[in-house]
Amino acid sequence: MADPSFDEAIAILGGTGEQGLGLALRFATAKRRVLIGSRSAERANAAAARVRVAVPGAEVSGGENSEACRGAQVIILSVAFEHTASTVEAIRDALVEGQTVVSMGVPLASAAGGPATQMIGVWQGSCAEMVAALLPKGVHTVSAFQNVAAHRLRELERPVDCDVVVSGAEGPRKRIMALCELVPGLRGIDGGALANARITESITALLIGLNIRYRVSGGSGIRFTGLPIGDP
Amino acid sequence: MADPSFDEAIAILGGTGEQGLGLALRFATAKRRVLIGSRSAERANAAAARVRVAVPGAEVSGGENSEACRGAQVIILSVAFEHTASTVEAIRDALVEGQTVVSMGVPLASAAGGPATQMIGVWQGSCAEMVAALLPKGVHTVSAFQNVAAHRLRELERPVDCDVVVSGAEGPRKRIMALCELVPGLRGIDGGALANARITESITALLIGLNIRYRVSGGSGIRFTGLPIGDP
Repeated sequence: MADPSFDEAIAILGGTGEQGLGLALRFATAKRRVLIGSRSAERANAAAARVRVAVPGAEVSGGENSEACRGAQVIILSVAFEHTASTVEAIRDALVEGQTVVSMGVPLASAAGGPATQMIGVWQGSCAEMVAALLPKGVHTVSAFQNVAAHRLRELERPVDCDVVVSGAEGPRKRIMALCELVPGLRGIDGGALANARITESITALLIGLNIRYRVSGGSGIRFTGLPIGDP
Repeated sequence: MADPSFDEAIAILGGTGEQGLGLALRFATAKRRVLIGSRSAERANAAAARVRVAVPGAEVSGGENSEACRGAQVIILSVAFEHTASTVEAIRDALVEGQTVVSMGVPLASAAGGPATQMIGVWQGSCAEMVAALLPKGVHTVSAFQNVAAHRLRELERPVDCDVVVSGAEGPRKRIMALCELVPGLRGIDGGALANARITESITALLIGLNIRYRVSGGSGIRFTGLPIGDP
């Protein structure tokens, strides 16, 4: 499934945030090259330096978002929902056919002054479908990683213990499912069509509610049972 | 939390269907008295007879829906989404203050000729909130059991291995969470406010999609991880 026109690097835009940095740490630990993107190249470089300290030998560099996208087959959008559209607009011209953009944003009501346990409506149905509508033709959109708590990603000595529902067109979807397997305790689950992101995204609001009601500081997660893919 | 004006019986309306019958079997196995309701008293009686065969010593009776509600503190609505409003209208006058009606319906698109992997919009936000809007004042609504596969409920020799997200006002919610613990392998999860049923209901559509993509005949389920309530 690897395309010779790209290298194996994974770009993480918003890689200076809690969740993006967590993914960067995990993929660096799995020996994948990571490109951390941010609106500020300086902050991206600082985040890359943190990853190199935490993961000796990590191949991680930082750069402004558009720059971080270049050459990467997979570009993970780890920005808050309210910054998603503007980030996609900003990188749009840097993208080339065959790249896969992973939407992990969730339209929580907190984007509009409400609680993070509720959702707001997105015209296209979900954050992932909004991203798909904004991307140039030939660039794939996949929905993934919404339900994985940042805390769990960052505790490198512990397995993450969470399933990741991956939705989108088949080829890119399988590619991102395979990426999940690089992280101990993450399991990529075949979430079918991109529109199913509507459900996956809303599960995040439910998990945030559980974190509050059960006072979970490390973040709750989900697992699916009964699937013929072995227990996690 | 028990109210002396009710007995411990659990009414299951639509208890002749796959999922309702599964719950009846499980609660009967847990030595709870079960009242199976149906539009047809005859079919309800036939279902009750099946439960008595499967669970020796079970205290199970059948009756027309309104009749099955009488005296029960908990009334589980196990009818297809498209029959939910008419069923609630039909039992409305038989209900009394203090009873708890459990909505387990899901507004799958199959109710309107679409696929069961997609949802249709409900004016009130969810099936459970629609039920709440139709019930008389003083009758509580709780959302639960949507994500539990019928197959798993009916294999009495195996634990169900599924979490049940329970939403609604606190008292009735805790009562239904306690009911979950009667069934081996079911865990009642505090799902907060009734409106969170919007999320729980949509998870069913996701699970149906997983059943198709992974060819799961027994039904997939969900578990939450990281909660401070012990592993299931």
